[in-house]
Amino acid sequence: MKIRDVVLTPVAFADPPLLNVMGVHEPYALRSVVQLVCEDGVVGLGESYGDEAFLSEVRKVVPGLAGHDVFDLPGLKRLVARTLAGTVVTDEHGLIGGFSIRKTIASVYSLFEVACLDAQGHALGRPVVDLLGGKARDEVDFSAYLFYKYGAHIGADEDSWGEVVTPEALVGAAKRMVDEYGFRSIKLKGGVFEPSQEIAGICALAEAFPGYPLRIDPNGAWTPETGVRVAGELDGVLEYLEDPTPGIEGMARVAERASMPLATNMCVVNLGDIEPAFRARAIGVLLSDHHFWGGMRDTQALSITCESFGVGLSMHSNSHLGISLAAMVHVAAATPHLTYACDTHWPWKTADVIAPGALEFHGGAVTVPERPGLGIELDADALAVAHENYVRCGLMKRDDVTYMRKYRPEFEPNTARW
Amino acid sequence: MKIRDVVLTPVAFADPPLLNVMGVHEPYALRSVVQLVCEDGVVGLGESYGDEAFLSEVRKVVPGLAGHDVFDLPGLKRLVARTLAGTVVTDEHGLIGGFSIRKTIASVYSLFEVACLDAQGHALGRPVVDLLGGKARDEVDFSAYLFYKYGAHIGADEDSWGEVVTPEALVGAAKRMVDEYGFRSIKLKGGVFEPSQEIAGICALAEAFPGYPLRIDPNGAWTPETGVRVAGELDGVLEYLEDPTPGIEGMARVAERASMPLATNMCVVNLGDIEPAFRARAIGVLLSDHHFWGGMRDTQALSITCESFGVGLSMHSNSHLGISLAAMVHVAAATPHLTYACDTHWPWKTADVIAPGALEFHGGAVTVPERPGLGIELDADALAVAHENYVRCGLMKRDDVTYMRKYRPEFEPNTARW
Repeated sequence: MKIRDVVLTPVAFADPPLLNVMGVHEPYALRSVVQLVCEDGVVGLGESYGDEAFLSEVRKVVPGLAGHDVFDLPGLKRLVARTLAGTVVTDEHGLIGGFSIRKTIASVYSLFEVACLDAQGHALGRPVVDLLGGKARDEVDFSAYLFYKYGAHIGADEDSWGEVVTPEALVGAAKRMVDEYGFRSIKLKGGVFEPSQEIAGICALAEAFPGYPLRIDPNGAWTPETGVRVAGELDGVLEYLEDPTPGIEGMARVAERASMPLATNMCVVNLGDIEPAFRARAIGVLLSDHHFWGGMRDTQALSITCESFGVGLSMHSNSHLGISLAAMVHVAAATPHLTYACDTHWPWKTADVIAPGALEFHGGAVTVPERPGLGIELDADALAVAHENYVRCGLMKRDDVTYMRKYRPEFEPNTARW
Repeated sequence: MKIRDVVLTPVAFADPPLLNVMGVHEPYALRSVVQLVCEDGVVGLGESYGDEAFLSEVRKVVPGLAGHDVFDLPGLKRLVARTLAGTVVTDEHGLIGGFSIRKTIASVYSLFEVACLDAQGHALGRPVVDLLGGKARDEVDFSAYLFYKYGAHIGADEDSWGEVVTPEALVGAAKRMVDEYGFRSIKLKGGVFEPSQEIAGICALAEAFPGYPLRIDPNGAWTPETGVRVAGELDGVLEYLEDPTPGIEGMARVAERASMPLATNMCVVNLGDIEPAFRARAIGVLLSDHHFWGGMRDTQALSITCESFGVGLSMHSNSHLGISLAAMVHVAAATPHLTYACDTHWPWKTADVIAPGALEFHGGAVTVPERPGLGIELDADALAVAHENYVRCGLMKRDDVTYMRKYRPEFEPNTARW
């Protein structure tokens, strides 16, 4: 089934002022939405990053897609690799590890692979999960994803979550999120305050949510020594510790002395990182992400590598909309070796580009859609609004650092700062 | 699409007296053929081992299959694992590595997984390769698979290949095989004669086929010291050296000093072997086999693990018929990281259970069938003949050792014998 037309729509959606090691989320998060219009009226949907550097790479591939068969995924990968030869998209926001031509190709390919698989599913009348080998589970568990945050964007009114910087506010935000979505595990984005304050936050969560698996992710904000110390202080409290320190070598130093497994979406971000990280026993949990691991099929196949080495597997999230969530749910459902609840930024957004109802959280989990393809429908009006947001907001890339300096002019992004 | 009925047919086909470290091939090779009869008249085909130990495990699973959805492969795996809990099928012929409950489950599951994928393809009107992610190549390269052999089975007339024990006879057999199939690489099954004689055989092939990649597989017949010595003598001659010595530790000792990569289908035979073998840098090429690596999907996914560690990937073969070849071709075609021509015993058989024409060798390669499913059709008459062979031949398991003693009463199977 051949592609006839490709509609690429950059979109933006309102995002709260969430804090991380690089600064604070801007008022809008950017995404790209692709529609592959195929023969027989089938349309395949994909979603990925929306920054200009990524979009400009994606746009290079678009002209070559007309006439491509959506079942020819290896040919799609070759097309992307050929078109982007020599280009490296830098991960300017600094939160998903290093950058390379391999990762660039994997990321651009992924956007189109998801849309091809959606189109395949529509053409065949089967959900994507069936094209990935069938459902290993009927629903996919997600974790509550807490952030420290400011109460309001610059010049705006306070949002409904308010300021979250104290342990008490963290617990309050967690209670709201757990009440609304039913999450049964909790992750805290750290790397914002000095470790003792974040340890206090985790301890407050542990007290308020006894028995809930807890995680903290400082995005490499600590030295290896601090990582070891925090691991010791949170012994028995954390389910896993995510990216305490930058790099495979530093992670291996922490892993050697930490009682809980270390997770990462920063030091192992493509196939080339696996051998050094696994040899060094640097990680115990790989946080996969089909957006940069080369699509749904390769992300799923990665689970065999992790299973072989006794490494756990879960899923990383950036700010995203419903097409990405649907893809995450299908790939997670088709992956038997998925050992932890996945991450999602879902609760932080207030709008989407898909028709509501296809993806709902109950008990912190999303039931795998049974309809053909990804099981979702684009909402044309909502897409128009989201594109209008993109045009009006004027953002062309994610830049948490510069925005942070509007709150704190002296701010310097600095991993391993503590 | 649900399974309505399961037809399991043990079959046998004539096999020449091919020599290996364990003895000599008996007059008949055994296989099993499964037909999954589904709703809407769809039939899915699978083929695997035909020895009684395997068949008896397969038969335990059959009653649970009625009503199972062919798209529910994870559920199929759970069904097989639950049914066979605690059973270990021993690999009595000793040529495909150790045995474990994990490998037993993977093997039995594989037979049915292939048939489910064939049924899926028929139901969806797509070739299996498309259900595995699409064609990374249009045709799959195979290697000529030479054996030392006796000229005739006990009490029978000489076969058309005659006796092959000298370098000259090896070259003659290779010429015939290359002429008939167009193979562009050559593998010799070794472990039969003392190493100097087999080295002379390889050198004769190198001289007769300049530029052809050559391999030898003594099935672990040598000590590590002999492996190192042979590797040195065949430096620059071999493409890879397969299983020179038993076990990961021994292989690692040879690998450390050999100039060519070591390949295996014996010391890495399931997921549990990967970590120790890869950490020890014991192998440079994994010879996968969907029959015991848990089916086509897991075999394909294995390629990501190999690619991550810079380990090459190719494909092992046992004596097989057309259903297995079709499955091998589809999984190989869908696997981008496949770095060597695959093995096949195809030239040694004179009959099949599938209708001719779907799988033909040109230039040593088989073009991937484009018809739905595996792209092959069962020949009911040929299946009946093959089943009749099974019943009449009286063989219930492969036993190269006992049969060898009819030629050489003093024979003792013995890996690492030299």
